[in-house]
Amino acid sequence: MKAEIISIGDELLLGQVVDTNSAWLGQLLFKNNIEVKSKTCISDTEEDIIHQLEESLKRSQLIILTGGLGPTKDDITKKTLAKFFNTGWRIDQGVVQQLELFFEKRSRKMLEINVMQAELPESCLTLYNEWGTAPGMWFEKEGAVIISLPGVPYEMKRIFELKALPLIKEKFSQSPLYYKTMVTFNIPESLLALKIKEVEESLPPTIKLAYLPNLNVVRLRLTGASSHDGSIVDEIEIYANKIKEIIKEGVIAENDLTFPEIVSQLLIKHHYTLSIAESCTGGFISQQLTQLSGASQFFVGSVVSYSNSVKHHQLGVESILFETVGAVSEPVVEQMANGVRERLQTDFSIAVSGIAGPGGGSEEKPVGTVVIGVSSAQKTIVQTFHFIGDRSNVIGRSSNMALAMLRELVLSN
Amino acid sequence: MKAEIISIGDELLLGQVVDTNSAWLGQLLFKNNIEVKSKTCISDTEEDIIHQLEESLKRSQLIILTGGLGPTKDDITKKTLAKFFNTGWRIDQGVVQQLELFFEKRSRKMLEINVMQAELPESCLTLYNEWGTAPGMWFEKEGAVIISLPGVPYEMKRIFELKALPLIKEKFSQSPLYYKTMVTFNIPESLLALKIKEVEESLPPTIKLAYLPNLNVVRLRLTGASSHDGSIVDEIEIYANKIKEIIKEGVIAENDLTFPEIVSQLLIKHHYTLSIAESCTGGFISQQLTQLSGASQFFVGSVVSYSNSVKHHQLGVESILFETVGAVSEPVVEQMANGVRERLQTDFSIAVSGIAGPGGGSEEKPVGTVVIGVSSAQKTIVQTFHFIGDRSNVIGRSSNMALAMLRELVLSN
Repeated sequence: MKAEIISIGDELLLGQVVDTNSAWLGQLLFKNNIEVKSKTCISDTEEDIIHQLEESLKRSQLIILTGGLGPTKDDITKKTLAKFFNTGWRIDQGVVQQLELFFEKRSRKMLEINVMQAELPESCLTLYNEWGTAPGMWFEKEGAVIISLPGVPYEMKRIFELKALPLIKEKFSQSPLYYKTMVTFNIPESLLALKIKEVEESLPPTIKLAYLPNLNVVRLRLTGASSHDGSIVDEIEIYANKIKEIIKEGVIAENDLTFPEIVSQLLIKHHYTLSIAESCTGGFISQQLTQLSGASQFFVGSVVSYSNSVKHHQLGVESILFETVGAVSEPVVEQMANGVRERLQTDFSIAVSGIAGPGGGSEEKPVGTVVIGVSSAQKTIVQTFHFIGDRSNVIGRSSNMALAMLRELVLSN
Repeated sequence: MKAEIISIGDELLLGQVVDTNSAWLGQLLFKNNIEVKSKTCISDTEEDIIHQLEESLKRSQLIILTGGLGPTKDDITKKTLAKFFNTGWRIDQGVVQQLELFFEKRSRKMLEINVMQAELPESCLTLYNEWGTAPGMWFEKEGAVIISLPGVPYEMKRIFELKALPLIKEKFSQSPLYYKTMVTFNIPESLLALKIKEVEESLPPTIKLAYLPNLNVVRLRLTGASSHDGSIVDEIEIYANKIKEIIKEGVIAENDLTFPEIVSQLLIKHHYTLSIAESCTGGFISQQLTQLSGASQFFVGSVVSYSNSVKHHQLGVESILFETVGAVSEPVVEQMANGVRERLQTDFSIAVSGIAGPGGGSEEKPVGTVVIGVSSAQKTIVQTFHFIGDRSNVIGRSSNMALAMLRELVLSN
């Protein structure tokens, strides 16, 4: 069975909005063993939508459209679908009621253009939107399913997961997919490929290996469709173990977690608390950890000490160090790490000071120079790194490295 | 002239990686008056790449492929392009030299699979990659240009901007595009559309209006291709003024800036300094401001006070308040705002405390309740909001609202 995603909207083509919807859909469908074979982004015109629908219906049984719904979009997707499926219009009273409730809750007056959102193509099944104003639609044609969803990520995700996915599962019963992800850290992709070349070449055709690199992390994913006797599960486990034997401590997690998730889970498990002193990362590490719900179980707080004055007054770094060794130095980071841990009274701490660029570099300390420290009451480890890449790369790599060092320290505790 | 982008890679289809490349390319091409008419994401197989190239060449004169290059991808794009253009192979000595330099700089040994990256299709022009190992390629066929770039954003962006774009401009001389963006805040899209309906309907066919909503911000963009006498510039200005007259202070910027950029520029212009006390936003506002280079010109530091103990010890919030009114309350946020401003010695400050969810809500203070304060030595303004959406929505809306309140306070200073 083939699935594909069509994203509608000039704002996507012009890059004003990054299409995170299709990535989210691809991931969720993959986990349900429905592989997305192509994703297309087109302009919100009737001509382009119809052309793409015709093309897609030739090859796919599940087509998910996002966007082109909503008041100011002139509901182009809805109108085009009604035309494409050659159907009339109906007023959906369920949608009318939901719209009334939606505006009442927000103490806003419902506008004429909002009322029109309850008018839907006759032949579609309504996928009710309890989170916004544009309902989703489910059409069927010659065994294929065409789903239209609003483009707002928050609404799209909820409608898809709660309203559409159960119907999809019912319609297309797929044998479950088994996959195992291993997260590796600080091993370049090409070196990783060389190391596990033999295992990779010995994989049976039923098992696939994918490399998913991002900054200094490479995810290795083994995938196979389940057979009835469940042997694929054991088989994937065998190859995963072979890879682990080669990569050893380079594998930092054996499931599909992000770096902040790995560290959060570890700290929560041991009931440890954490504080952070961030300079060049400017709050990025704190934000990465606190975007996960439940962060308050381990995260106490941070000091983003951009200026030296804050490093001195809020973290207790000796002022003389800024003149003698400079703010980006191991002695300063050591004091930042200990200062934040002692003042915020936590079990562990992270401290980072560096030059993220593009300005601020010198011959001695070029852009990308980052000093990272982690500390506990027993031990403080400080190390200097030279990261390659632009500002956001340096910040991202620093964050991953700091979390990796913290993980090591916690594990050795 | 039509342009399109083809992104290659299963990691994109499966949603393991969000395709930010095509958004970036779309934006840059748009600014150069080359409109991207479609974006497609396909699997890294020869069959899919060739099928898509054939389709794309029927309708487009500029085709940009990203991804499917690099050691572990088996260089599928390169091999497929050589086959598609029916060309032999050559070793590019420039690439060999660059690879040697690349590995020398990183003190890493060059591997056999890296050396193979210097082997390129005979008929392509090399777009040298000074930032990574996979070179870009430029092909021409029957007046159309096909460009292949590596998928790593950092490398792709630099090769495209510095190596490919100058050649594109030379090959396809486009009349420049004129566009004007107005950033509006806190006006729902449907209400905005209603307010400016008459102006929108009066637009000549040469000028287009686009709505680009994101959280509580809607960008309005007027676009027109330049005529030789430059009249389009004046004409767009006339309609922009008409919109401004209607929306008034709802327009917070008249160029295509993000909220953090707007506030950063304002603070830098007036030589003001800023500190932040973040609770539920967990470092997000600090990170938004410090991801922009030059943030040190105004940003002094932050205290991410997740626990009440940090609010008390680092910001001076009276402990009794946590029991009487609770951490998410106007008295606490007022003390956070003044505390961080006084302790970090800045002109202005922001403070945020709230319930981002999904847990932590109560009947009295449901998820989405956020108290925001901004302060200067003269004035402190604190307000309670009820934001709708999931955790990341509540954090994002809180950040925008806090920056909007700060902007107001700075402007009224």
